[in-house]
Amino acid sequence: MLAVNCNKTEVKPRFEDIIARHSLFNAMPETLVQNFINASQHITVTKGSTLFMQNDEAEWFYIITKGWVKLFRETLDGDEAVIDMVTTGHIFGESAIVDDNIHSFGATAVEGCELLRFPAKMLKTAVSENHTVALAMLGTLSRHRKQQTREIESLNLQNASQRIGCFLLRLCQINDAEPISLQLPYDKSLIAARLGMKSETFSRALNKLRNDTSITVKGANVLIPELSALSNYSCSACSNEFPCDDLH
Amino acid sequence: MLAVNCNKTEVKPRFEDIIARHSLFNAMPETLVQNFINASQHITVTKGSTLFMQNDEAEWFYIITKGWVKLFRETLDGDEAVIDMVTTGHIFGESAIVDDNIHSFGATAVEGCELLRFPAKMLKTAVSENHTVALAMLGTLSRHRKQQTREIESLNLQNASQRIGCFLLRLCQINDAEPISLQLPYDKSLIAARLGMKSETFSRALNKLRNDTSITVKGANVLIPELSALSNYSCSACSNEFPCDDLH
Repeated sequence: MLAVNCNKTEVKPRFEDIIARHSLFNAMPETLVQNFINASQHITVTKGSTLFMQNDEAEWFYIITKGWVKLFRETLDGDEAVIDMVTTGHIFGESAIVDDNIHSFGATAVEGCELLRFPAKMLKTAVSENHTVALAMLGTLSRHRKQQTREIESLNLQNASQRIGCFLLRLCQINDAEPISLQLPYDKSLIAARLGMKSETFSRALNKLRNDTSITVKGANVLIPELSALSNYSCSACSNEFPCDDLH
Repeated sequence: MLAVNCNKTEVKPRFEDIIARHSLFNAMPETLVQNFINASQHITVTKGSTLFMQNDEAEWFYIITKGWVKLFRETLDGDEAVIDMVTTGHIFGESAIVDDNIHSFGATAVEGCELLRFPAKMLKTAVSENHTVALAMLGTLSRHRKQQTREIESLNLQNASQRIGCFLLRLCQINDAEPISLQLPYDKSLIAARLGMKSETFSRALNKLRNDTSITVKGANVLIPELSALSNYSCSACSNEFPCDDLH
């Protein structure tokens, strides 16, 4: 396991804003939010740093302030299932407190990242003692569940090209001006893993998607001439219509 | 949509036991449990009956007392992703109360079923007013999340034969006497759908599993000569070891 390069600094006002805005905190009594802010640490980690491993006891939970973090499970064979990729504003590791305090997945920074971390024990106490916090936690778990249900549906029914199309659509807004130009948020090999594909399958499926929808992909640059062509292609094999309601 | 053949009867003591034993109810104040029992209805539905559709407003949540129920999502193309198959003792539909009161999946009886149903509104009120109930609800959602995380991992990393092996293992106990004889709990076509496979893929994968692990399958009868051979085969591509901890 790589060591976390922990660079503890004072929590600055902008971090207070990030914390206060998050749904887990924004209904909390002010004094409790202040306790979390006082106990928080701002850490900087290098690419490849492991924040925690699957089955580790949960010491901290995290909000990302910069960069991408991979959440994953590792098989007995040493293969890796990427459960989620999360970035700025996302919280992770908090669900361990309702799961015997054990992380059910591992978390690794896939690039240099900045994170706020908070003692898991403090959240566990707040949830067990404060009804408002328990309700906020229910909201957080419910959103996770909705995303996972969509994920299972996608893995069951969408083919590889449709899954890549879906991934791109989730980077777009419905009122983006066409043609839409966007950048892939992280390496193609990671996108493949995130979508449950081998790299070869990803390449073949991306080619098919290009032919079928006339999008172009050069390196990390993607050009989508017509959003509706892409959404017709991908969303027809899904029970959600574009834009996905689990993004809101 | 098929109508629910609702055969309301008085709640008998054995149903009270089922309710009281369920983790959602067993930490509740007794008077509140009694309110749920008084408001519950015991219904009998025929094979194919739809209990609710995806995006329906949640009027009831359910505990199954007999039979199998399919939870599914339907795509714009009319395909169906089976999210889960649940049976006696399982609760479903309750998570809608933390999800804008909208069911995020549909539910259909795949055989004649008996169910207890409870007003969703009553649970919503109990969760928002009673801290103990909110914590019990957190426990329920957390278990759902754990199962779904395992499901996503399995769809990502296990091949079709390993997924069928995994399905069979989850019907076994670690101390079952070998050879283990068991019955498939529902139709093979439904098992295929539950595992995210087309019927042809399922047949091919089942043949491969037979050859690779020496299990035999005749109709609905399965014979597993050696549990460890099957668990080595399936669990090597998973981060869980047999027996799965999400079953407990």
